[in-house]
Amino acid sequence: MATPFTSDEYADRLTRVARAAAGAGQDGLLITPGPDLAYLCGYEPPTTERLTLLVVAADREPVLVVPRLERGDAEKCPGATHLRLVDWPDGVDPYSIAAEVLHASAYAISDSAWAMHVLGLQRTAPHIAYKSMTEVLPMLRAVKGTAELDRLRGAGEAADRAFEAILTMAFAGRRELDVAADLTRLLHDFGHERVDFALVCSGPNGANPHHHAGERVIEDGDMVVLDFGGLRDGYGSDISRTVHVGEATAEELTVHDVVRVAQQAAFDAVAPGVPCEEIDRVARRIITEAGYGEQFVHRTGHGIGMSGHEPPYLVEGERQTLVPGMCFSIEPGIYLKGRFGVRIEDIVTVTESGGERFNLTTRDLAIVG
Amino acid sequence: MATPFTSDEYADRLTRVARAAAGAGQDGLLITPGPDLAYLCGYEPPTTERLTLLVVAADREPVLVVPRLERGDAEKCPGATHLRLVDWPDGVDPYSIAAEVLHASAYAISDSAWAMHVLGLQRTAPHIAYKSMTEVLPMLRAVKGTAELDRLRGAGEAADRAFEAILTMAFAGRRELDVAADLTRLLHDFGHERVDFALVCSGPNGANPHHHAGERVIEDGDMVVLDFGGLRDGYGSDISRTVHVGEATAEELTVHDVVRVAQQAAFDAVAPGVPCEEIDRVARRIITEAGYGEQFVHRTGHGIGMSGHEPPYLVEGERQTLVPGMCFSIEPGIYLKGRFGVRIEDIVTVTESGGERFNLTTRDLAIVG
Repeated sequence: MATPFTSDEYADRLTRVARAAAGAGQDGLLITPGPDLAYLCGYEPPTTERLTLLVVAADREPVLVVPRLERGDAEKCPGATHLRLVDWPDGVDPYSIAAEVLHASAYAISDSAWAMHVLGLQRTAPHIAYKSMTEVLPMLRAVKGTAELDRLRGAGEAADRAFEAILTMAFAGRRELDVAADLTRLLHDFGHERVDFALVCSGPNGANPHHHAGERVIEDGDMVVLDFGGLRDGYGSDISRTVHVGEATAEELTVHDVVRVAQQAAFDAVAPGVPCEEIDRVARRIITEAGYGEQFVHRTGHGIGMSGHEPPYLVEGERQTLVPGMCFSIEPGIYLKGRFGVRIEDIVTVTESGGERFNLTTRDLAIVG
Repeated sequence: MATPFTSDEYADRLTRVARAAAGAGQDGLLITPGPDLAYLCGYEPPTTERLTLLVVAADREPVLVVPRLERGDAEKCPGATHLRLVDWPDGVDPYSIAAEVLHASAYAISDSAWAMHVLGLQRTAPHIAYKSMTEVLPMLRAVKGTAELDRLRGAGEAADRAFEAILTMAFAGRRELDVAADLTRLLHDFGHERVDFALVCSGPNGANPHHHAGERVIEDGDMVVLDFGGLRDGYGSDISRTVHVGEATAEELTVHDVVRVAQQAAFDAVAPGVPCEEIDRVARRIITEAGYGEQFVHRTGHGIGMSGHEPPYLVEGERQTLVPGMCFSIEPGIYLKGRFGVRIEDIVTVTESGGERFNLTTRDLAIVG
């Protein structure tokens, strides 16, 4: 286990995001259970219909509104010393309690806050303009600190080791589900506390970028897309590699190579100040010039941290520029309907001089048995 | 495994909720991934930042808006034959696509829809009045059909068996976490696919109704509140019993008996047409008259079905009347700060003539070793 974040670290984060909110024209932030709340005070209650809401605003003490039942739990969180707790008992309207601690007119709210809560707040405090975090402060958690980068590096290393271990196991004759179970076990073995997905997409299933793993028995001659990850020490891993059972055809080698070259070029383009969409364009240009543009059906990447998908997104239209400490996937792919698919994905962070990969295992086409 | 719900059953549900929405003054419903979506079409995608939205309105074909990437998965869901699919590719504003299929001015949206999505819809289609499901159609999934009741009965029976099995195991000298691990394993053994919580609250920890399970070693003389549950065949279990390690004191027996009598009285009060708050009042009156009113710090119960907490809530102010087929917990408790707590909880359904418990195991104070 990594060293827990200190109370001071949470204090710094609270101060920094309050300032960022003001810089983004917001009076404050409304944070609900999930990664945003865990990031700001280390509190991770289960998400339920009972309102838990952290109100952060510049020059004000942050207030955590909690169900009275859960006050005891909230008091124990590592960031609690920097918060004023306000509780509400069952049977009382929690939005009225929350509205009493809202002192201004423009707040950004966590993307994953429940609609019930945002609509309850809008009803109770209709003079306030609510915007989503992604709209006004998408980079809330995007720039990672040193201790966070260490955790992401550790998660990536564990995913690499799981990939290297799966290469030594049998593919042909086993169901996708069996290989997925092995990947899940390996991620746990290498220190993940949670496995979120283990996609094993063989043969024609590889052409569906969101296939999971099913009953299909893997055969000699299959391309197999592997895409797996989860949380280690609270931070995400996410890696894709495409392997081949037995010898690959010339076409399979070509498609794999186009994706590999596109992924490398996108990585090489990473540097402070480059717009996110430019990374997508670099990968897409190479795949398009090779004649597979229509078969690259998704964006090039997504941010990662305490959640598996978060800003920044590497997608056309995203003009946010890269900042050292941002972490995201670079995962171009080509999907040939009914035939096979190829995807290669690393987690990458922006450094002062370019990019650093957290997945260092080979991107060459591995041949499995 | 229970028999899967049929495509016809999903069609019936879609028709019924569209009618209910109209009856509640809404033009339609906006359903996002989670129990509402699973209930209406059997589709259970992971919840991500990518918008998936089922639009249901009376006299219109239901439309499922999905990320293009996930279209293949959506097409395979059991209710898909009744839906028109509309997809959106990465890089396009999904709210514009969704707004094109909104034909009216008042929609209720799933409670757990992401704030990002509801704010995105409000921005793109500002002429529409959005309300939360709990505000306008809280009983969307509250009245269970026969096949659903069978599943809940099965989940309750499994929880009963887990409780009876834990009684034969050692408590004294083991940590709360060890007993919780046993409960988790037992629920899995008895057919749960998911265990959501296994609270073991010994001695003074029992006085915190939301204590989970910790390092405390259970001692002779402890009261121990057990509260555990999860999902079996997609439907929830949730049971609480309080046990005692060795012989109980007269006060402990008295407090346990007050809770037991309150729980029984609340159950006896269950009948069609009774307001939810009345069930809460019945339990609270008995506990208050015994002098422990201030120590009963939570509502009496919550609905249960495909989610562990859902409407109806048995709480002061909830005037919704009981309807045959509704299912909820009845779980009064008394919490004596720093000393011990008692809670007794069954899942109950409303029948034509009264109530039926899904937890039938003894509510007497069990003595454990």
